[in-house]
Amino acid sequence: MRLPKHIGIIPDGNRRWAQSNGLSKEQGYDLGLDPGLELFKLCKECGIKEITYYGFTIDNTKRSTLQRLAFTKACIDAVEMLTKEDAELLVVGNTKSNMFPKELYPYTTRRTFGKGGLKVNFLVNYGWEWDLNPIKECDETLKNIGQVIHSNDISRIDLIIRWGGRRRLSGFLPVQSIYSDFYIVEDFWPDFKRQHFFDALSWYNTQDVTLGG
Amino acid sequence: MRLPKHIGIIPDGNRRWAQSNGLSKEQGYDLGLDPGLELFKLCKECGIKEITYYGFTIDNTKRSTLQRLAFTKACIDAVEMLTKEDAELLVVGNTKSNMFPKELYPYTTRRTFGKGGLKVNFLVNYGWEWDLNPIKECDETLKNIGQVIHSNDISRIDLIIRWGGRRRLSGFLPVQSIYSDFYIVEDFWPDFKRQHFFDALSWYNTQDVTLGG
Repeated sequence: MRLPKHIGIIPDGNRRWAQSNGLSKEQGYDLGLDPGLELFKLCKECGIKEITYYGFTIDNTKRSTLQRLAFTKACIDAVEMLTKEDAELLVVGNTKSNMFPKELYPYTTRRTFGKGGLKVNFLVNYGWEWDLNPIKECDETLKNIGQVIHSNDISRIDLIIRWGGRRRLSGFLPVQSIYSDFYIVEDFWPDFKRQHFFDALSWYNTQDVTLGG
Repeated sequence: MRLPKHIGIIPDGNRRWAQSNGLSKEQGYDLGLDPGLELFKLCKECGIKEITYYGFTIDNTKRSTLQRLAFTKACIDAVEMLTKEDAELLVVGNTKSNMFPKELYPYTTRRTFGKGGLKVNFLVNYGWEWDLNPIKECDETLKNIGQVIHSNDISRIDLIIRWGGRRRLSGFLPVQSIYSDFYIVEDFWPDFKRQHFFDALSWYNTQDVTLGG
């Protein structure tokens, strides 16, 4: 079976899940933690080399304070949870804004936890335009834009899985997503099932890889 | 009904169509011309403001000479066909390479044909990295990356429709596609049906617009 080396995860639908389960929107984020850990372990078992979670974006911080605090806390908890696993962890986002949680500063250069082995990237206070900004500081001789962007330690993504039914990137790593295959799960992220992941891998296995050629 | 202002068209599957109909790969491109014109007319009738066709990319030019000549000719024919309609036409691509057909130089600044009214962009010898290159010439004060890229006269895309079943962008306008909704048609592009377009619009009407918020 042809496996993706690098999987991007867009864990969408937390708010819609909360509302359809009689909770207020901001109560949905916490329910995303266990799925995140389960997915990490599945990737580990399958031999995936790298995964990137879409935590929250600069766009997202314009939401209500209650929601912002809730998704920020969920991201902090998720990253701290992953430090207890065998992972090579990196948080990528705009640390110069006060929307970036100071608890996550220690993870903004890649660090190995436990035995390492699986690269895990977590986007926190990320913005696509912020990501591309360093290109401005380069000159014409630069050959590969991917080497200078803020997310330059995140490799090209083979497969993006998005939960919650939306069929869009929403600003997720535009350079690394150029040739990615997209797989959409209709269920909301808190309703994550192992089968979603297996279905995504099976589907990916049927796709050809052309890298635009 | 909520209509997209700007639709991106990825007319994929010409080669697979040709092969599954007993033709050689390069014979598939010509069959894409009539669908392109029919789609243009549908957009016009529905009041769409802008459409962008993915012609060919710098990546594509690495294919066999026979294929390259065939898809280049199909793009020239398509653009010339559109000059006979009421359209505001623009061809965007790397004109400095000899892969760019000289027949299309006259269209690399936007020109109005007939009564105009619908902006039509055609990507020819386009590359995402080529598109982003001008960012290198800017300084930190630049606020909006979209204003300086080579495709700066192409607006944000609301809906991308891709024929041929692949679920990927393949380098299509990364900046304008940041928040786009993707709709996939399983049929190959030469098998275009009006119903594909209506189905895409109906689906788009059920999506919310958040622009990442």
